[in-house]
Amino acid sequence: MRIIQKSFTLNPRPRGFHLITDEVLGHIPELAEFEIGLLYLFIKHTSASLTINENADPTVRQDFESFFNRTVPENNNLYKHTLEGTDDMTSHIKSSLLGASVSIPVNSGKLLTGTWQGIYLCEHRNHGGARKLVATLTGN
Amino acid sequence: MRIIQKSFTLNPRPRGFHLITDEVLGHIPELAEFEIGLLYLFIKHTSASLTINENADPTVRQDFESFFNRTVPENNNLYKHTLEGTDDMTSHIKSSLLGASVSIPVNSGKLLTGTWQGIYLCEHRNHGGARKLVATLTGN
Amino acid sequence: MRIIQKSFTLNPRPRGFHLITDEVLGHIPELAEFEIGLLYLFIKHTSASLTINENADPTVRQDFESFFNRTVPENNNLYKHTLEGTDDMTSHIKSSLLGASVSIPVNSGKLLTGTWQGIYLCEHRNHGGARKLVATLTGN
Repeated sequence: MRIIQKSFTLNPRPRGFHLITDEVLGHIPELAEFEIGLLYLFIKHTSASLTINENADPTVRQDFESFFNRTVPENNNLYKHTLEGTDDMTSHIKSSLLGASVSIPVNSGKLLTGTWQGIYLCEHRNHGGARKLVATLTGN
Repeated sequence: MRIIQKSFTLNPRPRGFHLITDEVLGHIPELAEFEIGLLYLFIKHTSASLTINENADPTVRQDFESFFNRTVPENNNLYKHTLEGTDDMTSHIKSSLLGASVSIPVNSGKLLTGTWQGIYLCEHRNHGGARKLVATLTGN
Repeated sequence: MRIIQKSFTLNPRPRGFHLITDEVLGHIPELAEFEIGLLYLFIKHTSASLTINENADPTVRQDFESFFNRTVPENNNLYKHTLEGTDDMTSHIKSSLLGASVSIPVNSGKLLTGTWQGIYLCEHRNHGGARKLVATLTGN
């Protein structure tokens, strides 16, 4: 077994849910060398997150944004940690509800995902900027 | 260290939360060969998910189903992505709230879980069918 | 590649969200030996959980506690599984919303986290006691 690790920065994206599978794969061409393995993708931030969901219809990503805005309301009366604005504490909460990492099996040099699965960047801040990720690949 | 990977299909289950620990273990007898390791379990779908929770009282699984139905209401006025029915977008959201994978430590050929922990299949669709999983085992 | 595994018990903490990065690192000095790797941290309980979030301002942790109390209301009329009190079923639900494990990349003998990221113990019970964790380290 071997392990490789790559740190990279995603292109900045506006607030919302974004399909990043192709951009991520572009940073880890070594994936093609793994017959059996695992990809661990980690985001080095506490106000953006990663998840796996439907890779086709863009309204899925829009519905994610509106669901999380309803469920984690941007109302400063509800929070103490509000220094950076109404999207500050809500971004931290959304980040932990979705998680800072995804783990995906690798087979025959490709992600062993289902037909409809893609990797999402969940950008919870109004002006989050470019987000830093770490990809770690283990396997044969 | 070595790595093995098994793809398999679970028996179909109705909508709700289901304890699948024994069925999963039945697909990976190689687990018994690992002295120290990790099991990564991944579901290849975006409308069902995996989690770890209480393995004894079935009312815990019933309460999970009712909590998620309250928290992610099945009301098409709230969503744009509704082509496949009222359980379409809600299943995608529940899937990301719970996650597509679980990672469990392995020790002495067994899962190193707590006494009360079991693996749940969270079936969010009314008619989800048989779900495909990938188990990846690494360790010594 | 090699793998090591350590089981340990955290100091007991009151209900709420707690920064445990330093206590966890104190149990795994072997981390310093890994040039490239991954740390998998797993909690052996179904009423407490692990997440990664902001490591500085303590009001973030207080806002997490109040958000989860609003979102998973402690009202026994909503649940069937209530034998151990109003914090019983709610703790199971919070545990699955946040998750039983975190995976963190390791580089140059240290966690490759962002500046503001820390590991949280999310203690959902009123009297949860000392929680058992398993740390598994893989890498070179």
